Amino acid sequence: MAKKMVYFFGDVKAEGNAKMKELLGGKGANLAEMSKLGILVPPGFTITTEVCTHFMNTPGKYPKGLEGEVKTALQRVEKIMGSRFGDTKNPLLFSVRSGARISMPGMMESVLNIGLTSATIPGIIAGAGNERFVYDAYRRLITMYSDVVMEKAAGIEPEEGMGIRQQLEREMRKAKSAKGVKDDTELDVDDLKKLVNIFKRKVKQVLKKDFPDDPYDQLWGAISAVFHSWNGKRAVAYRRIENIPADWGTAVNIQTMVFGNMGDNSATGVAFTRDPATGENKFYGEFLVNAQGEDVVAGIRTPQAINEVSKTDASKHLPSLQELMPKLYNQLAKIRTKLEKHYRDMQDVEFTIQDGKLFMLQTRVGKRNGVAAVRMAVEMCQGRLISKEEAIMRVKPEQLDELLHPMLDPKAEKKAEKLAGGLPAGPGGGIGQIVFTADDAEAWADKGKQVVLVRDETSPEDVHGMRAAQAILTAKGGMTSHAALVARGWGKCCIVGCGALNIDSAKKVLSVNGKNLREGDWISLNGTKGIVYGGKVGLVAVDPEKNLHYKKLMSWADKVRRLGIRTNADNPQDARMARKFGAQGIGLCRTEHMFFGPDRITAMRRMILADDEAGRKKALKKLLPLQRKDFTGIFKVMDGLPVTIRTLDPPLHEFLPNDEASQREMAKEMGVSAKAIKDKVQSLHELNPMLGHRGCRLGITYPEITAMQVQAIMEAACRVAKQGVKVHPEIMIPLIGTKAELENQRKVAVDTAKAVLKKAGVRVKYLVGTMIEIPRAALTANEVAEVAEFFSFGTNDLTQMTFGYSRDDAGKFLPDYLSKNILPAEPFQTLDQEGVGQLVDMGIKRGRSSRPDLKVGICGEHGGDPKSIEFCHKVKMNYVSCSPYRVPIARLAAAQAAVTEK
Amino acid sequence: MAKKMVYFFGDVKAEGNAKMKELLGGKGANLAEMSKLGILVPPGFTITTEVCTHFMNTPGKYPKGLEGEVKTALQRVEKIMGSRFGDTKNPLLFSVRSGARISMPGMMESVLNIGLTSATIPGIIAGAGNERFVYDAYRRLITMYSDVVMEKAAGIEPEEGMGIRQQLEREMRKAKSAKGVKDDTELDVDDLKKLVNIFKRKVKQVLKKDFPDDPYDQLWGAISAVFHSWNGKRAVAYRRIENIPADWGTAVNIQTMVFGNMGDNSATGVAFTRDPATGENKFYGEFLVNAQGEDVVAGIRTPQAINEVSKTDASKHLPSLQELMPKLYNQLAKIRTKLEKHYRDMQDVEFTIQDGKLFMLQTRVGKRNGVAAVRMAVEMCQGRLISKEEAIMRVKPEQLDELLHPMLDPKAEKKAEKLAGGLPAGPGGGIGQIVFTADDAEAWADKGKQVVLVRDETSPEDVHGMRAAQAILTAKGGMTSHAALVARGWGKCCIVGCGALNIDSAKKVLSVNGKNLREGDWISLNGTKGIVYGGKVGLVAVDPEKNLHYKKLMSWADKVRRLGIRTNADNPQDARMARKFGAQGIGLCRTEHMFFGPDRITAMRRMILADDEAGRKKALKKLLPLQRKDFTGIFKVMDGLPVTIRTLDPPLHEFLPNDEASQREMAKEMGVSAKAIKDKVQSLHELNPMLGHRGCRLGITYPEITAMQVQAIMEAACRVAKQGVKVHPEIMIPLIGTKAELENQRKVAVDTAKAVLKKAGVRVKYLVGTMIEIPRAALTANEVAEVAEFFSFGTNDLTQMTFGYSRDDAGKFLPDYLSKNILPAEPFQTLDQEGVGQLVDMGIKRGRSSRPDLKVGICGEHGGDPKSIEFCHKVKMNYVSCSPYRVPIARLAAAQAAVTEK
Repeated sequence: MAKKMVYFFGDVKAEGNAKMKELLGGKGANLAEMSKLGILVPPGFTITTEVCTHFMNTPGKYPKGLEGEVKTALQRVEKIMGSRFGDTKNPLLFSVRSGARISMPGMMESVLNIGLTSATIPGIIAGAGNERFVYDAYRRLITMYSDVVMEKAAGIEPEEGMGIRQQLEREMRKAKSAKGVKDDTELDVDDLKKLVNIFKRKVKQVLKKDFPDDPYDQLWGAISAVFHSWNGKRAVAYRRIENIPADWGTAVNIQTMVFGNMGDNSATGVAFTRDPATGENKFYGEFLVNAQGEDVVAGIRTPQAINEVSKTDASKHLPSLQELMPKLYNQLAKIRTKLEKHYRDMQDVEFTIQDGKLFMLQTRVGKRNGVAAVRMAVEMCQGRLISKEEAIMRVKPEQLDELLHPMLDPKAEKKAEKLAGGLPAGPGGGIGQIVFTADDAEAWADKGKQVVLVRDETSPEDVHGMRAAQAILTAKGGMTSHAALVARGWGKCCIVGCGALNIDSAKKVLSVNGKNLREGDWISLNGTKGIVYGGKVGLVAVDPEKNLHYKKLMSWADKVRRLGIRTNADNPQDARMARKFGAQGIGLCRTEHMFFGPDRITAMRRMILADDEAGRKKALKKLLPLQRKDFTGIFKVMDGLPVTIRTLDPPLHEFLPNDEASQREMAKEMGVSAKAIKDKVQSLHELNPMLGHRGCRLGITYPEITAMQVQAIMEAACRVAKQGVKVHPEIMIPLIGTKAELENQRKVAVDTAKAVLKKAGVRVKYLVGTMIEIPRAALTANEVAEVAEFFSFGTNDLTQMTFGYSRDDAGKFLPDYLSKNILPAEPFQTLDQEGVGQLVDMGIKRGRSSRPDLKVGICGEHGGDPKSIEFCHKVKMNYVSCSPYRVPIARLAAAQAAVTEK
Repeated sequence: MAKKMVYFFGDVKAEGNAKMKELLGGKGANLAEMSKLGILVPPGFTITTEVCTHFMNTPGKYPKGLEGEVKTALQRVEKIMGSRFGDTKNPLLFSVRSGARISMPGMMESVLNIGLTSATIPGIIAGAGNERFVYDAYRRLITMYSDVVMEKAAGIEPEEGMGIRQQLEREMRKAKSAKGVKDDTELDVDDLKKLVNIFKRKVKQVLKKDFPDDPYDQLWGAISAVFHSWNGKRAVAYRRIENIPADWGTAVNIQTMVFGNMGDNSATGVAFTRDPATGENKFYGEFLVNAQGEDVVAGIRTPQAINEVSKTDASKHLPSLQELMPKLYNQLAKIRTKLEKHYRDMQDVEFTIQDGKLFMLQTRVGKRNGVAAVRMAVEMCQGRLISKEEAIMRVKPEQLDELLHPMLDPKAEKKAEKLAGGLPAGPGGGIGQIVFTADDAEAWADKGKQVVLVRDETSPEDVHGMRAAQAILTAKGGMTSHAALVARGWGKCCIVGCGALNIDSAKKVLSVNGKNLREGDWISLNGTKGIVYGGKVGLVAVDPEKNLHYKKLMSWADKVRRLGIRTNADNPQDARMARKFGAQGIGLCRTEHMFFGPDRITAMRRMILADDEAGRKKALKKLLPLQRKDFTGIFKVMDGLPVTIRTLDPPLHEFLPNDEASQREMAKEMGVSAKAIKDKVQSLHELNPMLGHRGCRLGITYPEITAMQVQAIMEAACRVAKQGVKVHPEIMIPLIGTKAELENQRKVAVDTAKAVLKKAGVRVKYLVGTMIEIPRAALTANEVAEVAEFFSFGTNDLTQMTFGYSRDDAGKFLPDYLSKNILPAEPFQTLDQEGVGQLVDMGIKRGRSSRPDLKVGICGEHGGDPKSIEFCHKVKMNYVSCSPYRVPIARLAAAQAAVTEK
């Protein structure tokens, strides 16, 4: 490695800066930056992430020359501090901390007080004037170091409860109980001296090695341990969840120790330059006098507020930093202003006051919730700190979720009885009485009751009950299970895969962790976090329209974005909601859900049971007025905006009952033999229904179905057009794989539409287009586009077929694939740009090669996923379509894509 | 249309020639050619196929100028014949016949005797000197014309049995019964005169139009009718089966009528320049004195042989043409020599002798069976008539099937009792006693009995019984059903989808068309044609190695082809057979069938039931020696050739029984509870198993399975290598969709292989590669190739996923798709070059972009399909792999691809 490996900072100078996060990690880059800004930081130096990568690739080996660079930087620190590392008179101590490109809080290791040895301890005591403090620090060093360096980094895996840290902690407890005291602080210097010796013996006995008494041994041991911790279990798991590449590596920061626990003139604290919970522009923080950083985090003592506005119920009786140390507070407040102005974003800082001197230990962009993110972005822009485009980029699109869904009252939630955890499939809060069947859900809801539908898993037959319920809870299934998909689509609170539930639907009992709940019992769900509570926790309503910051931000986003945003909606309620959220049309109106209603399913089933076209037509005739009514309602709500309606997609067997009891019931209702129904179910049975007789294949075998649907669409359109509604129907044929299929269905549609329009004597413009969801359709898109007036990418199916994954079954191996890094992300949530994306890009380019003005959108789940939306922007789609609750998210994501492109 | 539309021929001149088949159709082009060659043909002219296309595109309208061109040509004919069309003294008569680019025998219409009107009849009678002959011709004209022109071409669809032809035939029968005679010939001239009047009245009454009495009306009516017949039902159906594009159109040939029925100095006949049944180089044909062409075809009179060598048992007592009319025979024999020399292929000719004068009516390339095709090709080449490359092109690859499979004795077959028909899924003949279960099949076969396995349909659990049976017969399923696929793979006789069968497996009774057959009854199957016979029809064995013409042809093919030919074989027997047939390696050795044997299935099931890795490893340990033995056998047979072995592919649930009885039995056998098995079956259940937990996904979840298989492969390889066998194992990972998957499995394979080789102390070179069968793998082939040493395209799965068709379920809509012309061919039989082919081409190019020497093959069903093989050649694969019996076919197809490319 010819590159520079060590970067010094301190004393208003630094070799690095804030832009070098990739090389120095976030912490290192910001320490350098603060130092350059003239803010006092304990001097030190950063070893780059490239050294980490080298250390991982040639396990345990450092690049040549590193030792020399470290020595040079260390000498520079020694010069500033006027003391030497390992010196017996006036020794320096160091902290050794990790620091990746982006913050991975608590996932990697740190070691403090490096440099305490039998030789340096007397010098430290002389300097600090506090023998107990030094031995306490030494005790901490041994504990930390033996755990992090000697055990973890060495790859030793002790039995449960037999880790060196736990063994040392046991010794500590023994010492306290021998003395009859409770708190660590009650051990005096002699106790600690004895304990230190016991600790050292224990380390030698357990780890077969002496605790190192050479400061350089300690230093290099700690550096290696931090690098090793990049591949520690916790860090690897965290990276997987956060999609952080393994090859980034961490930097290591070696920094002079400062102590907030050197007496009442010392303190340590954390602060945010604005309130991270509300976004309000006020300096917010807390601190502890005579304490170390870990004491603030540990929560043993009640932290004090740094100023009046930061005071809480718990801290209001305690003096603030402003009151206690007004001069230092003013220094801190000035640093706050300087940092925010410099970084142009809210900062999360750590500081230590050592003997009346203020040191900044860290600054980083502060985490914030959705509400705060929106407010800060808008106010910073209005305060001319950032531009509108920057404001747009400041809010993670998903954070808007918090502004849209009613939530469980956070205060009530803290006191509630937690029953179990599951996967957060539908955000927000949901409260209701337990019911176990979809029919009960509907019946109870009809009586005005609030219910939570609890099922092992859900199927399309449960949809009416899911709709009626306040929230949905299932024992099985993952984030892409039926319940999850449907709930997310509606923005309904939902928790799935809650394995702790034992559901006996027959007896209507739910047992969870030894507790039995029955039908009618209340439960509350936090769908954002995936937590189930017993009883009735309160809800807090949210109306984004009342949030002026949100409205302002979205208006900026709408101006900047190029992508149109439509919604997936199958009924007027959803359409209305989506329109309120800013949808510019319907991108996918599925018609199959419409057939599950009790007034329709019978006609649908009669059609399926019919032996010939005449029989089917007779049954379809009954469905026609119902479908027409569905579309009339939707068209009215979407006045002036396009509505894309997909013809029947699922295989017919989905409309028939599977179990014999229901079949018998159906037979009775329809006046046919149970055998006839069983036979039909059998004849329709498919081994791989996903690849079976569905989509346009149905319409080709039974053109009368397509004809009835188009008739209903066009009759509804004519009807509302006569009432003055501006109606733009777009008829969409699903599952097209060849041009000839679309030609066939287009002819049925156009012939039907022409006849309806002629009869009604109205002019209504309509389009006929297709889903692109079969790989072959994308590959031959130039041909398909010759007969398609628009494309809508159905990336759910396209992902299924491009990967060969059944979404219903992939749960058996996808988790394994993610944990083994075989896939970077769940491909049904985030579009696989490399594979599926190729087909999308190819489909658009080829489609437009034969029809340059081809309108192109997406209506799969990915249409609401910000990363995928960015891709849709890049490949020049006209719009994305997503569920109503994701419309604002998509608007913001589309704007961000446009900004990023610039 | 500025182009010439009418081409004259006759009198040793012609405007067209044999190369103009696209424009003039086969018949027209050859009539022109013969005329130019100085062979006497009745003069006439051809209207081009382009006129047909025009007529179809602007329905019923002819291009401008056609009438003029027809008139000019007609006048030229009149001049040669010295008579005029419609003349009252010496009138000309015409035949009007279709003629497409390639022969579509009987699929389109002809009208003869055009020009017979009340005005011309006296002149004809005067010329022919035979009044009865003329009225008989007129009767025939009215029947043909009213049917073909006035009814069919007019689009009139009469009720069943009420067509005009049928009504006229009824009148004919009435006339005969009134007179008390049986044969048409017994009606005298007066009877016919009366009948003609009755016919005319009937036509007027039924079709509301007079029979046209103007010769030009007749002529143009007939021309239009022939053009219309291009889109007639029969023609459309035939085109679909034969893959003839609809836009080719047909030409129309208008030719002077000559009559073979003008007395004993007249005759008509057909001949082949070589024997079409054996290929022997002898002039072969038959004729009838005083007859028309249709009489020869109708088979009412026994045709006479044209010479000694053509005599059969039926005709040996009749004089030959050579004996009867030696001069004319010599003329004909000279024409034979001339035509074969000129056309350089066996010709099928029609001739008519009118009053001692020989006219050739048609010559075309003669159809021939496989045996004859091979012999002719080789002998013509040896006789320097054609080149080796031409010889290669002369045999349809599929025709080789006839040389490979034992067949039912054709003579015995004629006398056998036909029970039912089905789809010809596996060629050749099969005879045996009926059994109804796979176990019975095996048990009976073990006792030395020949059995035919009869099932509703088959599943992987039946494989052992299918193997043991002589032939397989199923009531359900199509050409791609399990039974069909397995049988074709083995080259086993098989008929599927035999809907007339009613099988009661429990009672062991098969009823078919009212007849009951029981277990042990004999049946015989003609798998080439799909016919089931009762009883024991004899078999005729076939050994291609004894066929020297075949051996010669294949040696030429092998020299010319670029593609390697491998085989799909899972056991030593198949491998040996394929090697005998010329296979140059194994391209696909599936390992899953190996686990169904009774000695293995238990261990396999134990592995599946195991709760943890340890349990699985224990069970796999039992499978290891068995697998090793499998591979040892195969390696020995394939000494010196590569063997590609695919690791486990199907989902695990395929190895467990589905029905409760078998589950209970399995539980008993394995000493676990039936519930445990039922639970496992349920937990493994998948909604879309084709897209589920299978292929490399299994190997990634359970690396120990891959490891066991690789260990078995490499241990077997080491073992045989020590015995001096040259072994080239190629380990193939199925269902790869991402590079990371292959990396994962490659590591398992390489680690295992290294360990085995080290332990054995042997050097064996091996490769690790992958199937390309997931669209995503083709799209990202450049990445996949970074870790794959070879690609093998699994076009079965690739077709499933590219189209989104489940092969198991597509039977519900594919027939409809083919009949509606939505698909040009069954995509699982013939590779869809436009869609799936794009992915194949892309996969190869991208794969080789990152690994230029990447070895590429195909192992799907398409590897044995000649059209698909041509594609594989074009996209520069290294080899194709197919079932053993298709190896010779593939060798020839590959050679043809190479010749075509030149």
